[in-house]
Amino acid sequence: MTNRPPAEPGMRLEDVDTPALIIDLDAFEANLARMAADAAAAGMALRPHAKMHKCPTIGLKQMALGAVGMCCQKVSEAEAMVNGGIPDVLVSNQVVGAPKIARLASLATRARVGVCVDDLENVDQLSAAAEAFGVDFEVLIEISLGRCGVEPGEAATALAKRIERAPRLRFGGLHVYHGGAQHIRERDERREAVDYAAGRARAAKEGIEAAGVAVPRVTGAGTGTYEFESASGVYNELQCGSYAFMDADYSRNRNEGGAPYDRFEQSLFVYATVMSRPAPDRAVCDAGLKASSVDSGLPLVADADLDAEYTGASDEHGTMRLGSSNRTLKLGDKIKLIPGHCDPTVNLYDWYVGVRDGRVEAVWPISARGCMT
Amino acid sequence: MTNRPPAEPGMRLEDVDTPALIIDLDAFEANLARMAADAAAAGMALRPHAKMHKCPTIGLKQMALGAVGMCCQKVSEAEAMVNGGIPDVLVSNQVVGAPKIARLASLATRARVGVCVDDLENVDQLSAAAEAFGVDFEVLIEISLGRCGVEPGEAATALAKRIERAPRLRFGGLHVYHGGAQHIRERDERREAVDYAAGRARAAKEGIEAAGVAVPRVTGAGTGTYEFESASGVYNELQCGSYAFMDADYSRNRNEGGAPYDRFEQSLFVYATVMSRPAPDRAVCDAGLKASSVDSGLPLVADADLDAEYTGASDEHGTMRLGSSNRTLKLGDKIKLIPGHCDPTVNLYDWYVGVRDGRVEAVWPISARGCMT
Repeated sequence: MTNRPPAEPGMRLEDVDTPALIIDLDAFEANLARMAADAAAAGMALRPHAKMHKCPTIGLKQMALGAVGMCCQKVSEAEAMVNGGIPDVLVSNQVVGAPKIARLASLATRARVGVCVDDLENVDQLSAAAEAFGVDFEVLIEISLGRCGVEPGEAATALAKRIERAPRLRFGGLHVYHGGAQHIRERDERREAVDYAAGRARAAKEGIEAAGVAVPRVTGAGTGTYEFESASGVYNELQCGSYAFMDADYSRNRNEGGAPYDRFEQSLFVYATVMSRPAPDRAVCDAGLKASSVDSGLPLVADADLDAEYTGASDEHGTMRLGSSNRTLKLGDKIKLIPGHCDPTVNLYDWYVGVRDGRVEAVWPISARGCMT
Repeated sequence: MTNRPPAEPGMRLEDVDTPALIIDLDAFEANLARMAADAAAAGMALRPHAKMHKCPTIGLKQMALGAVGMCCQKVSEAEAMVNGGIPDVLVSNQVVGAPKIARLASLATRARVGVCVDDLENVDQLSAAAEAFGVDFEVLIEISLGRCGVEPGEAATALAKRIERAPRLRFGGLHVYHGGAQHIRERDERREAVDYAAGRARAAKEGIEAAGVAVPRVTGAGTGTYEFESASGVYNELQCGSYAFMDADYSRNRNEGGAPYDRFEQSLFVYATVMSRPAPDRAVCDAGLKASSVDSGLPLVADADLDAEYTGASDEHGTMRLGSSNRTLKLGDKIKLIPGHCDPTVNLYDWYVGVRDGRVEAVWPISARGCMT
């Protein structure tokens, strides 16, 4: 169900109800601009992933800076993006089952729609639905990196030929996203992982082209690795999402020489209230694991002057250990947390609260929150 | 935002869109009846926790079987329960900050409302709001078991006296919930943990009564331990929630002699679709960590005949390893998963799909989904 917004424009930050999902708009805008510039400088198309922000308002800002469209992970997510004004969506995932395929075809009556496949019959099903709705799909082949997808070579080439022959399908190229590489801590190891992915993409592309089918696009990459895909010579489209917000898990990645990965600034925070001060070294806040997903670790306390560590999440409570240099946190004080993992944390909220200079400037609906189907 | 229901009554289970949150209604009803009977047999009031199911429809079923009201963890959750027809709510948590306290007072104009405290000033704030709204609060003292709460003895007694003196507050007794005890695996160790909690409850009660203040209620207990609170002689109200659904984490608890804890049946499932079959021993389903919270471990595959193990959750994918005895799962096949932890999994969905004999019988809104404030 949709909850009412925890803030209104004009409000002071400290009056925002908690828990709330706060965007530092200066940092956020700088992140969007930086990625747009990086993609442009590398000659790469940028198709940011909407599974992260789930918000067409943000997607439109990315498009205004040059993005070619949005990636989505689910049909319902793509519907929410198109409903919010995004004209071009790629479901970077398999769509299985007649009802979902029909919804995707219906969506293609009012937007440019791409989808990924790793199965021959699925190609035929997509083609039949496109014919039934009188629409076209762009279809990309997912190349396996250990989850979904097919092997480069025979399997990929057979799929490309099937797509090429299928009525109302247009072969869009390859989807080669290496999720596992994004959070490898050392830069050299991230590069090696992407080298491996790029090698598979290249092999698949060459096999398909040798069979006489053009491969217009190779799409993939995330915030942790996009510089390597950009330099690979085989990718020509980036799918990064997290760069807009960042999270505690990404903050553990390292640059060359072991320095922290700092290309983007943390712009997303869970705003929380101290609701109990049961002991001198313990404070409890109102943001637990229903306010900040812990799948990639606990949130970090963003306020550096607090000398506080978030040490335990239960459903509705966050327990913090206070260092001896600051035990002055009192009941009702508000703090900022950096979520462990931005995507599933965003998915818990209905609203973003955009803040600049200590004031609420914008409240944006997270329209695709909970879009699972 | 509210998503459309993934099913309609009358539909066959296998036609339900996925991921969906399925209730096996026979098992669910048996669970409700069993807990109601256990509470009645022990002479305990039952006030089930709505933070687990977040659904007034289910709360009303619990009340029809004798529950005295609902526990809630947040003001917004309590609002959703009262809006759905629940006449009596206890916020088993501290409510901090003037806006939240005002909302709680407003709620008390149309329902019986209780709340917990562990701070003297908070008592005065509640009293002032109750006076401003012309309502009464029942106020309970939380006794610390390592998270929020005060120590038995002086601190608890001072709070009780303050509540007793405060206009429009009624001292309701003690809230002594031992969350940490619920998932201790061995039964004897769970009992020891509750013995410790009950000892603290008893000490607090005796101290307060020695100061001339009656302690009408001692409330606490969860699905993993309620038999011990029931036998303690000090608790008189149970707050269990998970018993209605159960989850993979509870299934790892053991009874006496090491047998699995089996007082309640698994009634909650994440229904998912096989969306990729990339290798003979690997299948990928469409339910990842945005469809089943992994804070207490990965989901289990419920279909015992599948010889399949859910081995990895990413945002929108669940990777399964298929044993050699069954590699027949095919694209589009639907499977049932047992979530690792029911509470935060429920909080990801807008609808329950109640199923009996292979047919959808009911679709219930999860009205308090995302109620964090």
